Amino acid sequence: MPRVLLTIEYLGTRYAGWQRQDNALAVQEVVEDALAFVCKEPVVVHSSGRTDAGVHALGQRAHADIPYDIPDHGLILGINSRLPRDVRIRAVERVAPDFHARFSAKRKTYLYQIWNDPIANPFFDPTHAHVPRPLDAERMREAASALVGRHDFKSFSVPEPEVNSTVRTISAVEITEKRHRVQFRVTADGFIRYQVRRMAGILIEVGTGAQPVTAVADALEPNFAESRWTADARGLVLESVEYTERG
Amino acid sequence: MPRVLLTIEYLGTRYAGWQRQDNALAVQEVVEDALAFVCKEPVVVHSSGRTDAGVHALGQRAHADIPYDIPDHGLILGINSRLPRDVRIRAVERVAPDFHARFSAKRKTYLYQIWNDPIANPFFDPTHAHVPRPLDAERMREAASALVGRHDFKSFSVPEPEVNSTVRTISAVEITEKRHRVQFRVTADGFIRYQVRRMAGILIEVGTGAQPVTAVADALEPNFAESRWTADARGLVLESVEYTERG
Repeated sequence: MPRVLLTIEYLGTRYAGWQRQDNALAVQEVVEDALAFVCKEPVVVHSSGRTDAGVHALGQRAHADIPYDIPDHGLILGINSRLPRDVRIRAVERVAPDFHARFSAKRKTYLYQIWNDPIANPFFDPTHAHVPRPLDAERMREAASALVGRHDFKSFSVPEPEVNSTVRTISAVEITEKRHRVQFRVTADGFIRYQVRRMAGILIEVGTGAQPVTAVADALEPNFAESRWTADARGLVLESVEYTERG
Repeated sequence: MPRVLLTIEYLGTRYAGWQRQDNALAVQEVVEDALAFVCKEPVVVHSSGRTDAGVHALGQRAHADIPYDIPDHGLILGINSRLPRDVRIRAVERVAPDFHARFSAKRKTYLYQIWNDPIANPFFDPTHAHVPRPLDAERMREAASALVGRHDFKSFSVPEPEVNSTVRTISAVEITEKRHRVQFRVTADGFIRYQVRRMAGILIEVGTGAQPVTAVADALEPNFAESRWTADARGLVLESVEYTERG
C-alpha cells in the first residue's frame, strides 16, 4: 500500500474544522469521501493536526495509504473532481511507510489576516478578521518579537487533558501591512490549541493601544493568569507544514 | 428630502442579483431594509443598473431621498450596522434633486476575473471564473482591441423588449495577468445584459486557442448570429460608475 502525502488547500468557512465529526461537516470527511471514491474503498487520512471551525488552509498536509499505485497526477485529478469547490488537493508526493503527517512535522507556519479599516470589506471578510480601529504595525512588531524562542504558552491556550506540554519554540514572527491589510505570520515547531488566535488577539490590542507593548511578554510570564481574547477564526490560515525528510 | 448617492460594495455570491424580487434575496432589499431602519420609514434606492445573480460590486452606485438630514458619517455607520457582512456602504455624498444614479451615469467599468491554473483555487473561487487550460493573454489583448469604439453589441446579449438600442461605446479594454490570475477590465458608456460575460466568454476561448483571434471582431459583424457562451457570473465585478457632474 503506497503511502502518499497530500497538500490540501481549503476555505474553512463552511466547515466545523478539519476533524471528522458526527453532526457537522468537516474537511477530513470530504477529503476521505473523495479518496474513497477514487480508490473504491474507504481510506483514512491523517493530517498534520486539526484546524478549528472556520479556520482555513493554504497548505495543510495529510498522509494516507492508498490500496494501489495510482499515478500522482491522476490521483490529484480524481480526488479534486469529487471535492466541493472550497477544498482542493494541490500536490501529492510519495513518502516512506513510517512517515506520519503529524509526527514527522518539523515546523508549521500560520498566517493571521486582518482587514484594518473603519468599514468592513465584503471581499476579504471570509478570510480576514475586521479591526476598525487603526493598528500600529510597528508597535505590534515590537510586541511580537517577545514570542520568538522557547516559551511555555500555557496562558495562550485552554487546558486540554491529552496535551502533555504547553512549551513550544517559535522560530520566526513577522508583521506585514499593505493597503489596510495587516498580516501576522508565525512559524514554530508546533502550536497548542487557540495559541495563534490568542497571540493575534493580544497583538491586535497592542496595535490599537488597548494594551501596552509589553502585553505579549507579560502573557509569557510563568504566573500570568488572565484570560485572553481569542481572535476571530476567519482570519486564521494554516500556511505550510515543513518536514525535514520524507523518509 | 436630501438626495444622497451611495457607493456600495458587495460579494454577490448569496444574492439573486441587485434588483429586489419576491422569492429570492437581492442586494437592493438588504440596502433598503438597512436604510429604512436608519430613517425609520421606507426608502427606495435607485441603482446605476442591475447586476445579475452572483455578480459582485466594488463600486455600485445608488441614489436615495432620505427624509431628514443625517450627517454622511452617521449615515454610513448606521446603514452598515444593519447590513449583512457581505454588503457595505463605502461612501455617501450629497447630490442635486435631479441627479439619477442610472440616468446621470457617464461610464461604467466592469472587471472579469479568471483563475487560470489546472487546479481550482478555493480562496479565489467566489470571485473568479476557473479556466484550467493555459490562457495566452497577448492573444486575448489582440482580440479585445476590436471591442474599443462604437459598436452594435446585439450578438453579445439576449433580446430584451425594453431595450431600444444595443449600440454602446467602449472607451477602454485591458487584459492583465499576475500569478495565475487574468483580469479583463472594460469601460463603456453602458452595457447591455450579459455583454461583459459574453465578451469574457469569447476572450477566454481566444486565450485557450479554441477560437481564432478574429473571433471578437467577427461577433461584432452585423449578420453574426451564433449564440455565444456566457462566462460564469462569479468572475464579474462592477468596479466603478462615473458621473461627470453631481448636479
